[in-house]
Amino acid sequence: MRYKAEIHVTLKRTVNDPQGLAIRGGLHSLGYEGVNAVRAGKFIEVWLEAESSAEAERLANEMSDQLLANPVIEDYAVSVVETAATP
Amino acid sequence: MRYKAEIHVTLKRTVNDPQGLAIRGGLHSLGYEGVNAVRAGKFIEVWLEAESSAEAERLANEMSDQLLANPVIEDYAVSVVETAATP
Repeated sequence: MRYKAEIHVTLKRTVNDPQGLAIRGGLHSLGYEGVNAVRAGKFIEVWLEAESSAEAERLANEMSDQLLANPVIEDYAVSVVETAATP
Repeated sequence: MRYKAEIHVTLKRTVNDPQGLAIRGGLHSLGYEGVNAVRAGKFIEVWLEAESSAEAERLANEMSDQLLANPVIEDYAVSVVETAATP
């Protein structure tokens, strides 16, 4: 079966986020004074073959631990959907 | 009212994604042969003040057009939730 795993990789709350601060500064310069905070993360889509949705989720979590996220400074969240298409 | 806008910025389907290809190569090297494709995008969280959820969504779309996404090569999707906390 073919699945798509959507993986959100975000910096841990306690980790400084210079990219987010730069975006906030840019938005303030453009006149968006109502912006309090910005955090920048990654959104990774992985199309993969697996025997079940649970197996696809297990694989995606393992990939995140090993390659996609840096567990020292980042958190990640995985969600899996069944799909027919690859991009 | 305080809202959080979650913005997914992804490369358009027709645009080449070298970062995604590099991740796919890395996953194959690690033994994840079942991975067919990978696309890498951005996940941006914006905490902002707005008068309503609709207004927060309008602002987040405007920010995406002006600063967060490059409309020539990227698509974006905005979703807004009410929130009490800022990070």
